[in-house]
Amino acid sequence: MRIDIITVVPDLLKSPFEASILKRAIEKGMVEIHLHNLRDYTTSSYNQIDDYQYGGGAGMVMMVEPIDKCISKLKSERTYDEVIYLTPDGDVLNQGMANSLSLQENMIMLCGHYKGVDQRVRDMFVTKEISIGDYVLSGGELAAAVLCDSIIRLIPGVLGNETSALTDAFQDNLLSPPIYTRPAEYKGHEVPKILLSGHQRKIDDWRDEKALQRTKDRRPDLLED
Amino acid sequence: MRIDIITVVPDLLKSPFEASILKRAIEKGMVEIHLHNLRDYTTSSYNQIDDYQYGGGAGMVMMVEPIDKCISKLKSERTYDEVIYLTPDGDVLNQGMANSLSLQENMIMLCGHYKGVDQRVRDMFVTKEISIGDYVLSGGELAAAVLCDSIIRLIPGVLGNETSALTDAFQDNLLSPPIYTRPAEYKGHEVPKILLSGHQRKIDDWRDEKALQRTKDRRPDLLED
Repeated sequence: MRIDIITVVPDLLKSPFEASILKRAIEKGMVEIHLHNLRDYTTSSYNQIDDYQYGGGAGMVMMVEPIDKCISKLKSERTYDEVIYLTPDGDVLNQGMANSLSLQENMIMLCGHYKGVDQRVRDMFVTKEISIGDYVLSGGELAAAVLCDSIIRLIPGVLGNETSALTDAFQDNLLSPPIYTRPAEYKGHEVPKILLSGHQRKIDDWRDEKALQRTKDRRPDLLED
Repeated sequence: MRIDIITVVPDLLKSPFEASILKRAIEKGMVEIHLHNLRDYTTSSYNQIDDYQYGGGAGMVMMVEPIDKCISKLKSERTYDEVIYLTPDGDVLNQGMANSLSLQENMIMLCGHYKGVDQRVRDMFVTKEISIGDYVLSGGELAAAVLCDSIIRLIPGVLGNETSALTDAFQDNLLSPPIYTRPAEYKGHEVPKILLSGHQRKIDDWRDEKALQRTKDRRPDLLED
């Protein structure tokens, strides 16, 4: 998998890809991440990438031409499965979308900043608009990092133990059951005895029951689909 | 505002706070971010912070004692409004929650990693569990960064132009209308003439109509509340 991220603040995105699981996936050669600074694609002498809104109003708008230049250059080099724009009014990311995207080969992710991109960028170049949730961020960069993380960890071999991703929350529309580790008792709080019993069948039943109960209590909407 | 983030991979969180709007908010003294490496709070000689699940199964569980030690130390130094655990089965973050949290003074954010934290951490210390969306990440670090960003940008004075945050998507349960900037025509794609007209009242009406239409098309659920 190759992901090209177009941004005006590439520095913001450095550390998430230089630590933990994403770093290991890159080092193992399972994914390539390329950060592109939009300012390298301006035509103006002072590196302009944004301008005032037509019709007035607060907030700057990212101009179409530098984005066109960057995307066109990338597309001239290889074929892309998706050009994704991270925006609060996109389709809301869920685990099923992450699963699908984890099967793609080459993707461009465009990070909005300021007030967002000129609508013509969306009309002319973007194939998929994704929101990571119903809240506004100062830019699409953290959203792109979140999207990358949700996708990359699903690529077989990236996680040390593949069954770990398959038993994650959401993969079966259920939240996870409570989990415990040593010590068996901590300041008067004990681990449920069933988990120490060694009866795997009963433990599995208990976990299924707790997962269902937690989902009913917290997210009954997940059970309606 | 002061935010203490407890994590096993503090390096992952560096760059998001060293760029763009979060960096400026920190430099202006409007927010303090303190990263705490959980490994500094272990009692074992080899810095153990996780262990196998009771009852078996893939994935390691973060132990209660180091987290207790870290949170207790912080609480001995000041009062906290919330101890937030970032987890996929928490309350799903939305703009209203971000608005509320932006009024708090001191918060602890605990990042899960591996399979998550021992349930007793949640029972004993956590006051609020937040999910940034219905998908699984390799850790709570990016979720904490997203939560911080969504909150901090709302603190008055952080954004250059305060009206910019107020006109964001979601603040009125509507998505944003399309936005445009120069040039007025790009490769045959024109800016809607109304935006060039100078009639502010008509422009405002057009934007309201487009915002409502986009919300109806993409997110009719937002209009049901």
